[in-house]
Amino acid sequence: MRHIRYGMIGGGTGSFIGAVHRAAMRLDDGWEFAAGALSSAPEKSRTSGIEAGLPVDRAYGSWREMIESESKLDAGVRIETVVIVTPNSAHAEPALAALRAGFHVVCDKPLCTSIEEAERLQRAAAESGKVFAVTYNYSGYPMVKQARWLVAQGELGAVRKVVVEYNQGWLATLLEETGQKQAAWRTDAGVPNAGGTIGDIGSHAEHLARYIAGIEPESLLAELSSLVPGRKIDDDANILLRFKEARGVRARGVLIASQIATGRLNDLKIRVFGERGGLEWSQEMSESLRVDALNGPTRVFHRGDAGLCAQALAASRLPPGHPEGLYEAFANIYAGVRAAILGDGPAIDYPTIDDGVLGVRFIKQAIKSAEAGGSWTKLD
Amino acid sequence: MRHIRYGMIGGGTGSFIGAVHRAAMRLDDGWEFAAGALSSAPEKSRTSGIEAGLPVDRAYGSWREMIESESKLDAGVRIETVVIVTPNSAHAEPALAALRAGFHVVCDKPLCTSIEEAERLQRAAAESGKVFAVTYNYSGYPMVKQARWLVAQGELGAVRKVVVEYNQGWLATLLEETGQKQAAWRTDAGVPNAGGTIGDIGSHAEHLARYIAGIEPESLLAELSSLVPGRKIDDDANILLRFKEARGVRARGVLIASQIATGRLNDLKIRVFGERGGLEWSQEMSESLRVDALNGPTRVFHRGDAGLCAQALAASRLPPGHPEGLYEAFANIYAGVRAAILGDGPAIDYPTIDDGVLGVRFIKQAIKSAEAGGSWTKLD
Amino acid sequence: MRHIRYGMIGGGTGSFIGAVHRAAMRLDDGWEFAAGALSSAPEKSRTSGIEAGLPVDRAYGSWREMIESESKLDAGVRIETVVIVTPNSAHAEPALAALRAGFHVVCDKPLCTSIEEAERLQRAAAESGKVFAVTYNYSGYPMVKQARWLVAQGELGAVRKVVVEYNQGWLATLLEETGQKQAAWRTDAGVPNAGGTIGDIGSHAEHLARYIAGIEPESLLAELSSLVPGRKIDDDANILLRFKEARGVRARGVLIASQIATGRLNDLKIRVFGERGGLEWSQEMSESLRVDALNGPTRVFHRGDAGLCAQALAASRLPPGHPEGLYEAFANIYAGVRAAILGDGPAIDYPTIDDGVLGVRFIKQAIKSAEAGGSWTKLD
Amino acid sequence: MRHIRYGMIGGGTGSFIGAVHRAAMRLDDGWEFAAGALSSAPEKSRTSGIEAGLPVDRAYGSWREMIESESKLDAGVRIETVVIVTPNSAHAEPALAALRAGFHVVCDKPLCTSIEEAERLQRAAAESGKVFAVTYNYSGYPMVKQARWLVAQGELGAVRKVVVEYNQGWLATLLEETGQKQAAWRTDAGVPNAGGTIGDIGSHAEHLARYIAGIEPESLLAELSSLVPGRKIDDDANILLRFKEARGVRARGVLIASQIATGRLNDLKIRVFGERGGLEWSQEMSESLRVDALNGPTRVFHRGDAGLCAQALAASRLPPGHPEGLYEAFANIYAGVRAAILGDGPAIDYPTIDDGVLGVRFIKQAIKSAEAGGSWTKLD
Repeated sequence: MRHIRYGMIGGGTGSFIGAVHRAAMRLDDGWEFAAGALSSAPEKSRTSGIEAGLPVDRAYGSWREMIESESKLDAGVRIETVVIVTPNSAHAEPALAALRAGFHVVCDKPLCTSIEEAERLQRAAAESGKVFAVTYNYSGYPMVKQARWLVAQGELGAVRKVVVEYNQGWLATLLEETGQKQAAWRTDAGVPNAGGTIGDIGSHAEHLARYIAGIEPESLLAELSSLVPGRKIDDDANILLRFKEARGVRARGVLIASQIATGRLNDLKIRVFGERGGLEWSQEMSESLRVDALNGPTRVFHRGDAGLCAQALAASRLPPGHPEGLYEAFANIYAGVRAAILGDGPAIDYPTIDDGVLGVRFIKQAIKSAEAGGSWTKLD
Repeated sequence: MRHIRYGMIGGGTGSFIGAVHRAAMRLDDGWEFAAGALSSAPEKSRTSGIEAGLPVDRAYGSWREMIESESKLDAGVRIETVVIVTPNSAHAEPALAALRAGFHVVCDKPLCTSIEEAERLQRAAAESGKVFAVTYNYSGYPMVKQARWLVAQGELGAVRKVVVEYNQGWLATLLEETGQKQAAWRTDAGVPNAGGTIGDIGSHAEHLARYIAGIEPESLLAELSSLVPGRKIDDDANILLRFKEARGVRARGVLIASQIATGRLNDLKIRVFGERGGLEWSQEMSESLRVDALNGPTRVFHRGDAGLCAQALAASRLPPGHPEGLYEAFANIYAGVRAAILGDGPAIDYPTIDDGVLGVRFIKQAIKSAEAGGSWTKLD
Repeated sequence: MRHIRYGMIGGGTGSFIGAVHRAAMRLDDGWEFAAGALSSAPEKSRTSGIEAGLPVDRAYGSWREMIESESKLDAGVRIETVVIVTPNSAHAEPALAALRAGFHVVCDKPLCTSIEEAERLQRAAAESGKVFAVTYNYSGYPMVKQARWLVAQGELGAVRKVVVEYNQGWLATLLEETGQKQAAWRTDAGVPNAGGTIGDIGSHAEHLARYIAGIEPESLLAELSSLVPGRKIDDDANILLRFKEARGVRARGVLIASQIATGRLNDLKIRVFGERGGLEWSQEMSESLRVDALNGPTRVFHRGDAGLCAQALAASRLPPGHPEGLYEAFANIYAGVRAAILGDGPAIDYPTIDDGVLGVRFIKQAIKSAEAGGSWTKLD
Repeated sequence: MRHIRYGMIGGGTGSFIGAVHRAAMRLDDGWEFAAGALSSAPEKSRTSGIEAGLPVDRAYGSWREMIESESKLDAGVRIETVVIVTPNSAHAEPALAALRAGFHVVCDKPLCTSIEEAERLQRAAAESGKVFAVTYNYSGYPMVKQARWLVAQGELGAVRKVVVEYNQGWLATLLEETGQKQAAWRTDAGVPNAGGTIGDIGSHAEHLARYIAGIEPESLLAELSSLVPGRKIDDDANILLRFKEARGVRARGVLIASQIATGRLNDLKIRVFGERGGLEWSQEMSESLRVDALNGPTRVFHRGDAGLCAQALAASRLPPGHPEGLYEAFANIYAGVRAAILGDGPAIDYPTIDDGVLGVRFIKQAIKSAEAGGSWTKLD
């Protein structure tokens, strides 16, 4: 099997999500970590790259240097894909440069920090004909794919209500003032604004809701709060949703995202209720999916069961009961990207630049609604 | 042990909640079912009373007749308490009459259907010096009492967020048009308005949140919807909450109540997050209580454990692991009322007319907010 | 509805299970507590009876007095049923006397302390034509009835394996030496021997296994241990089972009963595996029943769901999601007894003297096997 | 970080566990797949190796060829470790050869199929001074390490009882006759005997029990059955255990292993009860650990929580709430092996040849006990 060569931007020593991306690609087993500019500080960028296993001459000092140098290499040697795992405000510029240099792009979420920037990237991606993925990684779980499929098949009838939540407790104290790096950049109100909690995890919840329920929010009404004294940015978001009409129903929704939900770990979960059934999926119990009908027993589907949809089976590596987790979900995004690049099938779907644009719009309109004191705000 | 004689209004043959009240009182074992006017139809009222075990001469044809006749009986014979389990719009009149005749009153929730009526009852109860309980029965669970106590003790620090939900699926179809009696009266928009889902179950959620979190909502913003085509009243309610300042924090909240949550049974649950901890309780798993700290292991308290608070222990009949349920929770409300009437201690607390008034105000202001298209509305 | 008058033997002030029986009968709402001899000490017997609500003249000083006196009363006044809730070694004598005096009998489990005694009672019951129930109360749960029905319908195919467990931790210390009454009589090796844990809770497990799996154990191999230093009787039992052939299969089984399972409350649960499916039920989560097929999703049935078997529906009082518990399960035993006495239908089944005899035989043969160092021992 | 070069024996195209080992090593990120003899059929061995990504010249036709050829390569090029993932009866010979050629060995479980063979390997490993790991992979879970540590710390007091189970349902039908490869070799009674279910999964249960409880079984009494008609080997094992004295207590145990537990996936779980506490861990919910005390709340520890033991933290890659699973547990075994080979610390522990020998002895003595009709059999 041919491995796709990639160069990573961000993800230096001490960072979190870059290492997750690299491990996910190793698990997917179709990627070669060939180059990198792992930090915005040139010296750290180079040493981080070497520590992460890059050859010295491809551990670059900056992403500009990487894109420029790699572009000059032979087609059979140079990277084919750029993976961007920098802080949110530093996604757009390298992504645009990578597209223009002819590379595929995988970018962490949220895509960027303004709607205009997002739309510019969307146009550039369309013009380039390259693959552009945004790592809404929770959509990579097999049982999320099964949930989406069941809804699309009409198992629940028309969707009437969606409740999606993402609760974490790790920012219940003013962690950003203790030197904790992950807390610091996420709560820094000084950088171009993609919100705090709303951008960091609310964005995952928004994508998951659209992905599974298969309906589009039309407008929202948001209450964003900073509940930890001294925090400069929202750490709690409660949002009411009205969806566009689908199958004759205008569904309602609630999106809750909080990083002050003391004691909660990574509690992303969703419930969808339709005319004939309902379902629930929880990220911390990612291996199963609860489905209810109007009456009669609840059904609990397990990852790997015979009879799941093709996407769920394709996204599953181990037999049921042998737990998979977040790395595998992440690896499934990369498997989808790989298949798209290689033109292989049957592909696993993956979140695209279009999801990224909708995500940015959602964040920005939520902030706008909240700043207006809580008013219904259109998403288009 | 002396048994308190009661007369019941409503709860005739075929009704649901009246029989639950009577069973709860038998379980509590301190009550004598002595008289009744179990239906608004005189003949049915009398036959229902006899079928339910009343002596023929005290199975009355109307509540007016019962109050008048019982008032003339000797003090050692006549009823002492009136229990009202009629539809919501028929609570206020008999409650007022009962108070004026010198009876204690236990009334189902919501108290009545207008704020003015509620306040009139509140004044009458205060003047009478009689016990007036409103059966927010879910506050009778031992682990709910433990939750309230932990919060009051400061176990969580100041409360920052409350998420309370009450999800049912039984009205996911237009059940009211099939002749189902419970569905019919609950969805009848023709009677004086206490809402649909917001009054029926939203009111329980509101009380539970106040009871456990110990803080008062200051204002709300409600989205009430009728999601089943043809339904004349709300069947789904999503409400944002702002609480009054307590311990230096103005908490935020979300209240979700739905009767179109397909496949859900009686899924009332609450999460409270504070500065130092969080907790979760679920009615369908009523025997335990989850408590989290900032770090470290989750603790799960069990009903009947050594070391629970006095109210939780007093509200518990069986050893831990021997499941109790809804009847016991209901019986605990009656145990509290009984102790209050007899002047016994240590009493179990119970919801009073004041809770009833706050409940009516909550419902009415939610309807007002929703009718205004979703605007922040004060509760005072 | 006519109420059946009963007299209770045992269950005086401070005892546990007698009060549970009385509460269950109140919940069932077809019983009148008319007479009693609640203690073996005459004075305590009389005061306990009065405290429990009996009229002074029917609060007897001994069970012999009760049976003699009640026998002389008019048929419309005297008790019809004798309920025996004394310690195990004091079941047989009053039971026999009650039968001979023409009363129905409800006796706590285990039936008695020797196989001969048990068979004598069985013959007496047969000759009397009276109802004789043994309160294996866990068979009264609706979802236990549903489990039994599913197995009987062939939902699992022939049963291959049964694993039944009853784990408690309350005897993990030498509680009997602290004056705790419940611990003291259960661990007293001085009374005629029905074992410790094997008789107290192992007996429930044995009945549950037979009741649900619908197959009969043929032989057993038992390891009984006293794991708390100083304890005079078994507190831990691990038993291998071979069942008689049924539907062409000789099933295997494991029965685990322990009262030193530190931290466990009342953890009775059963798993049954057949050719085509498996099921699991747990007493602490009594409201649901898990059923698996060879492949595909797990199904979880809920008490009160449409589509359950007739016995499960008849045994259910509240809608699904409104928790019922141990009192209701116990009340269902009494509902079955009541229907049998009154000749009403559709009856709920209840454990009979035959179950009681099998239970005693199981206990005694387990003790025999263990005393032989663990050898396969026939049950017939 | 230096990567350790390994050669794999077994694990060719279509096999299951070989690919799991390779993925685990990629996740661990310290291994280089350098050579292999992936099948006993030379041609398939070579093509499988190439398909798995080996260079053509190191995709050998047999393990003998691999060991011979690799031994001749330069120290900086040749493999350092041999990973054996062949069927059980083909472990011993290549393991011995690998040790003699100076390679470290990682061998799948059970180690081999006779006690003599096992002891021969044990001596050879001791003489060689090389690392010899046996992949009892379930001991690699962080919360298993936390459980072991809590017991070793005395959190439970002396251990009194261990109940360990491994239930699967995939062999509930005669799958081996449908051409399913995994079923076929596991149920083949023709190869040298390491049992069926007892060797395949019972062996995991035995190791887990010893690993967590920290006590050694002294004797066992086994009932092994073939419950699927036509099956040639045991598919169900129920075993009573007596442990050697530790901290003054001779604990009792039950080990249940079944592959006809219809509907069960990979349901390995363990409960340990001691004088002062109890714990439970379940492989399908591997991210948490339940711990009970004599009284008071249950505690649930989560992987990644602050305050876990050093081994548990070292074995954890992602923050709590971001699910890890079987690959990570497997990778932890390899991390331990890698640290042992490189002399790095702080090491994660891993199962050694000694565990392998005890495992074989357990299997063989269980078979012996069962063949004797169920008699207590010493393990030494």
